[in-house]
Amino acid sequence: MRILGIDPGSRITGYGIIEKQGNRLRHIDNGAIFTRSDDDLAARLKIIYDGLSRVIIDYAPQAVAVEQIFVAKNALSALKLGHARGTALLAGVNAGLPVFEYSALQVKSAVVGYGRASKAQVQQMVRTLVSLPEIAQEDASDALAVAICHAHSAGLNHRLEQALAKQGR
Amino acid sequence: MRILGIDPGSRITGYGIIEKQGNRLRHIDNGAIFTRSDDDLAARLKIIYDGLSRVIIDYAPQAVAVEQIFVAKNALSALKLGHARGTALLAGVNAGLPVFEYSALQVKSAVVGYGRASKAQVQQMVRTLVSLPEIAQEDASDALAVAICHAHSAGLNHRLEQALAKQGR
Repeated sequence: MRILGIDPGSRITGYGIIEKQGNRLRHIDNGAIFTRSDDDLAARLKIIYDGLSRVIIDYAPQAVAVEQIFVAKNALSALKLGHARGTALLAGVNAGLPVFEYSALQVKSAVVGYGRASKAQVQQMVRTLVSLPEIAQEDASDALAVAICHAHSAGLNHRLEQALAKQGR
Repeated sequence: MRILGIDPGSRITGYGIIEKQGNRLRHIDNGAIFTRSDDDLAARLKIIYDGLSRVIIDYAPQAVAVEQIFVAKNALSALKLGHARGTALLAGVNAGLPVFEYSALQVKSAVVGYGRASKAQVQQMVRTLVSLPEIAQEDASDALAVAICHAHSAGLNHRLEQALAKQGR
């Protein structure tokens, strides 16, 4: 199963593609989409949307995972983040892909095994889990983290379904 | 010139289409797109996006106008609004239309001639300006208001350009 993780932001949107083969995770690609602050908002959202749509066409993921946000520094930054995040969700759903949302707690627990892990710990574990030669760009690393979280959850769900099916026999 | 005004919201997104013929405004249509709170966020954004895209196809506006937001009650409502607002901007820009943003002050000034006008005053003036038999649904009325604001601004810009062109002669 190929998973696209996205870390949306109005300035930088990170993305990471991994492939889950049995219990192994393989890194496919990661990167970031940059927007220029002197462009107007609609133009910036189009850059994010088109960039993510291009990534989806190029790498054909079967699922999209985005971190769920509950809090933001303030209402203005929440509004900006909301625009970018809505764009990321739309790029997934408009490509006909299932879109999954995970809380920061779920992502950290899945990657480090500890919900209050530091940013540096998460980045280091992401690097290790998908065998990167070095830590990825910050937003791309966060995108890989949520993709890894989905890979684990999808695996757990699959095992849970198998267990329930056995019980049903 | 045909203008689509949008008042985005995660629950209800209002839209209004008007046509500016010389100094006259003609009402074409207005309405609202409703989403169900039990749908997940990506699905709701797709309903808004598809609904607005359908309106754009049906009425072929030449410009889109959306109210600019600077504040929100709190970070969570700002985040929700941001998702819906980003979706509205994308529906416009993905259809190849120019998207304009106006502040609440600009909208109220354009519609009522007074930046601190009440919601009821704005609704009543919208009804009068585009000759509606009764006040439109709240979000549709707000959408018509921002469309009217763009119609006025576009008229002013046009006259300004003409005046500058004359000076240049």
